[in-house]
Amino acid sequence: MLEHEWRKKATVTRAPSSDAPENTVNAWKFPGGLSNPGEDIGDTAVREVFEETGIKSEFKSILSVRQQHRHPGAFGKSDMYIICRLEPSSFTISFCQQECLRCEWMDLDELARTKHATPITSNVAKLLRYGYREGFDKIDITMREFPAVYAGLFYKLYHRELPESYRNITG
Amino acid sequence: MLEHEWRKKATVTRAPSSDAPENTVNAWKFPGGLSNPGEDIGDTAVREVFEETGIKSEFKSILSVRQQHRHPGAFGKSDMYIICRLEPSSFTISFCQQECLRCEWMDLDELARTKHATPITSNVAKLLRYGYREGFDKIDITMREFPAVYAGLFYKLYHRELPESYRNITG
Repeated sequence: MLEHEWRKKATVTRAPSSDAPENTVNAWKFPGGLSNPGEDIGDTAVREVFEETGIKSEFKSILSVRQQHRHPGAFGKSDMYIICRLEPSSFTISFCQQECLRCEWMDLDELARTKHATPITSNVAKLLRYGYREGFDKIDITMREFPAVYAGLFYKLYHRELPESYRNITG
Repeated sequence: MLEHEWRKKATVTRAPSSDAPENTVNAWKFPGGLSNPGEDIGDTAVREVFEETGIKSEFKSILSVRQQHRHPGAFGKSDMYIICRLEPSSFTISFCQQECLRCEWMDLDELARTKHATPITSNVAKLLRYGYREGFDKIDITMREFPAVYAGLFYKLYHRELPESYRNITG
């Protein structure tokens, strides 16, 4: 059931009143937004998806990282945009009308094919389509948590799943 | 030859005069450092490896991303630490004596096994060992460049390699 639903993906379009450039208005894109200070990557994704679409979900993996410099609206800093794979636990859309014109579950093939999507959205749709057909382990960058050297703190490390046989080295 | 050399990895230890916490002093770690403003991830890695070790190299992939909050020395901000796989084109070490006590090419098995390494170093050594034995395509997060919607700008997108058959969708 969840796997079936993963052929679809909540997407939003920018409202024309936003300050986005012309060719990203009315383009399909994934929900998302800025991290709060001190917020984990996955928590930002889950929060923003809920705020924009009303869909509840759980963080599964990082799919892609974009680094962009001189990006408008990034406060004069270089910008890291991180795309996560989430598993939905609710399916009824109730979307933010300030931020979105439309919000729909969409077939991945259609999203990968349409010209009415930002290039990064098309690209990630193709990546998801690959994962959906051949296994998400092909595309997932998964998370492990480690204690930091600073007492009481933890950090999250994202990398390709390491098979059990490589986690412990003997002899 | 290069693959053989990839069983080894330039590593450095922190000088005891640095302000690192006690248990990271004298621990083996990979060379690295802070990005300059506007600098690409791979360019930072190549530059820092050269500055700390004298080794020339080329960026191949991202291996791992760490997100840490309240990290000392991160200017009160959350910290993203990105570990890259580089291919060396020179092999003679000439290391920075201000930053390192020792700098050596080290066998990956030994680096994965020693207790004298930071946890993240041990973990990435295990990941590299997996990639070295079963193919770097198992662990690599590779880069593609795209034109941004803003005229004349480009961005870099990092994700798992997408097979050719999934890049173009027909019908």
